[in-house]
Amino acid sequence: MTQTLRANRDRLMQSLDELGRIGAYDAGNGVMGVRRLALSDEDATGRRLVMSWFEQAGLAVSIDQIGNAYADRPGADPALAPVMAGSHVDSVPTGGRFDGALGVLSALEAVRTLNDLSITTPRPITIAYFTDEEGCRFGTDMLGSAVATDRIPLADARALRDADGISVGDELDRLDFAGPEPVGQRRPHAFVECHVEQGPILAREGYDLGVVTGVQGISWRRLTLVGSAAHAGATPTDYRKDAGLAAAQINVRLREMCVSGEFGELRATMGVIRPEPGSVNVIPGRVTATVDLRNPDADALAAAERTLDNFCRELAESSGVHITWQQTARTPPVIFDEHVRVVIASVADRLALRHRPIVAGAGHDAQEWSRLCPTAMIFVPGENDGISHNPLELSTPEQCGHAADALLNTIVTLAGEGA
Amino acid sequence: MTQTLRANRDRLMQSLDELGRIGAYDAGNGVMGVRRLALSDEDATGRRLVMSWFEQAGLAVSIDQIGNAYADRPGADPALAPVMAGSHVDSVPTGGRFDGALGVLSALEAVRTLNDLSITTPRPITIAYFTDEEGCRFGTDMLGSAVATDRIPLADARALRDADGISVGDELDRLDFAGPEPVGQRRPHAFVECHVEQGPILAREGYDLGVVTGVQGISWRRLTLVGSAAHAGATPTDYRKDAGLAAAQINVRLREMCVSGEFGELRATMGVIRPEPGSVNVIPGRVTATVDLRNPDADALAAAERTLDNFCRELAESSGVHITWQQTARTPPVIFDEHVRVVIASVADRLALRHRPIVAGAGHDAQEWSRLCPTAMIFVPGENDGISHNPLELSTPEQCGHAADALLNTIVTLAGEGA
Repeated sequence: MTQTLRANRDRLMQSLDELGRIGAYDAGNGVMGVRRLALSDEDATGRRLVMSWFEQAGLAVSIDQIGNAYADRPGADPALAPVMAGSHVDSVPTGGRFDGALGVLSALEAVRTLNDLSITTPRPITIAYFTDEEGCRFGTDMLGSAVATDRIPLADARALRDADGISVGDELDRLDFAGPEPVGQRRPHAFVECHVEQGPILAREGYDLGVVTGVQGISWRRLTLVGSAAHAGATPTDYRKDAGLAAAQINVRLREMCVSGEFGELRATMGVIRPEPGSVNVIPGRVTATVDLRNPDADALAAAERTLDNFCRELAESSGVHITWQQTARTPPVIFDEHVRVVIASVADRLALRHRPIVAGAGHDAQEWSRLCPTAMIFVPGENDGISHNPLELSTPEQCGHAADALLNTIVTLAGEGA
Repeated sequence: MTQTLRANRDRLMQSLDELGRIGAYDAGNGVMGVRRLALSDEDATGRRLVMSWFEQAGLAVSIDQIGNAYADRPGADPALAPVMAGSHVDSVPTGGRFDGALGVLSALEAVRTLNDLSITTPRPITIAYFTDEEGCRFGTDMLGSAVATDRIPLADARALRDADGISVGDELDRLDFAGPEPVGQRRPHAFVECHVEQGPILAREGYDLGVVTGVQGISWRRLTLVGSAAHAGATPTDYRKDAGLAAAQINVRLREMCVSGEFGELRATMGVIRPEPGSVNVIPGRVTATVDLRNPDADALAAAERTLDNFCRELAESSGVHITWQQTARTPPVIFDEHVRVVIASVADRLALRHRPIVAGAGHDAQEWSRLCPTAMIFVPGENDGISHNPLELSTPEQCGHAADALLNTIVTLAGEGA
């Protein structure tokens, strides 16, 4: 099938707008934010709206035990596994209207376009949204996909509690989103997720979309540096054990590691730096700091961790500042399926869209499905350096339209395979 | 006069203990702290206790309009200007029992010893305590001495208000410490202040006391670094404007400046480092940080400031992080009188006390008096690396006794001059 289809950009934007009004709040300066925390009333209203659109598009909707919604469109051959596309409709507390929603609604738009054109694909198509991708409320991200793909047991997921002690299970039951479909039954032919980039690369470099090669591995550490709090005036340089300076030296070293090329595409961030007592005339005696390391290559990530360890050990010895750390998170890199990436790139070429391979910096539902079936993602550029998890999050109708075109044709291509 | 006298160490320690019980609080682990904020009820109780000791020692006490107390002991020749010694009895909110108190009570002990020995010095001797040396409550340190020595007008000092809106004048009137003596009348022959070092040098290097050569100049700046908050995973290194990294680079550069020798005895501290938003997976978009520079040499201090300016300018250009700063405090260095220092050193030699010249890291009443008369200070080593402004502040009876001996003989020597 080499016919190139076009999605209805206006209809897509209208649906994005309509879903974006649910949980909307005034973030100041006329900017509207979105707050649809997982399994909140707003999330439930959003889910029901999207479900009603699934039904209006003639799809058969099934909810599984963790609240994931699957909307099935029959293919010509019911014996073939479906192509699945989707994302999530929950948001961070102060989010925008594109993160997650664009992936679900561009998949819906693909089905609506096929309906308009009365096209039946050989394979079935499934559109899905997954429960609690953000992880802000119950502490574990990609929760619904992780349960659907057997990484997290259903009972464990239901037992997770928010800050008020309310569990995932409580909320699923209250909102009637614990569906009858057993989790872990779906085995798609392929999975495709369209998502905002959440970074600056595509827009700055003038690309229409990114073909996501995988998800970076993540290593989070919480460092505790203990020196000696002392008088800024009365303590000679030689006698100092300045925990703030030691943290600064680690921060500078991390940047050196990133630009050295020695660790591939390493990204490093010290986001938290908390000196105590934190007074202008007291040498910091204790600092809590975090290090966020990312790398698409598992070996390079591990090498960066070892180099950081050695640096901290040497620094502790030379500075007299005691340095300890805890690993607070660690996920290995995900490499997406080469065939699905080639399909997306070919489709983009046919649509005359400028595209480049890109690594995902954040976690996505697609990485869970990648364990079960060939999977890849389409990244959509965003304005304002791709700002995301922020009311200023914005992809233009043109950017969203290109992504919807690419997703539509990718789904159609994959749904014709092996027929 | 070359007779070498000895102070009564036990009496000194007993008085320190008694004064230390006023405003005492349990700081945990059996350690008692002191809280006698300037012109609080506790400060007033402490002042009255010390005043009663002045009177018991036969001294004529006079309070000036800013609440400074002067206790005069006649000399053989009433036409000669007195030797003045003293310090303060107020404390920081979580202080110890030596800061300030040791200077006042070792001067009292000198007079008590002279009384015991029925010695009349040629010059009169004045013991003093000054109002609000710490500056914690009303925001201006060395307040009483500054008014007494004409740096701050009385009306300005009385108008200063604490966080609750209560003024210095209100409290002086309420506590009946606005005395009848006009400020600015005292012109001593010399001024000597004994004080805890508040640093580690003397104890670490095995000295019994320090002969203070002067007070470092101080430059305080509040830096504001504005970069761009962005996703730690999705933002490539090249695209970052990491305000936290820029602050770290400044911190590292400051240390390089200190060890370079290029700026003499420069000390530099970044005590406040406050990244926003301060989240593990967000590149800091904005950092507030403070820089505390100290130098006993005015030119070297100014040179360090210029070098910091240039570094910040270059860093802003190379990093894309916008860097601005405010000067929040700046005091020039003070150089103490060489003759008074020589007297202290000779006295220490006679007492077989190990001594070294030392620069004061913090501000002291003596620096105000140094504008009016020959002035110097005696520093007393402290345990625990000289920790101060802390309940753990501790100088041993031996350390305090050595200081009292040195102060006594210094006062006696100076009080014999020009007779």
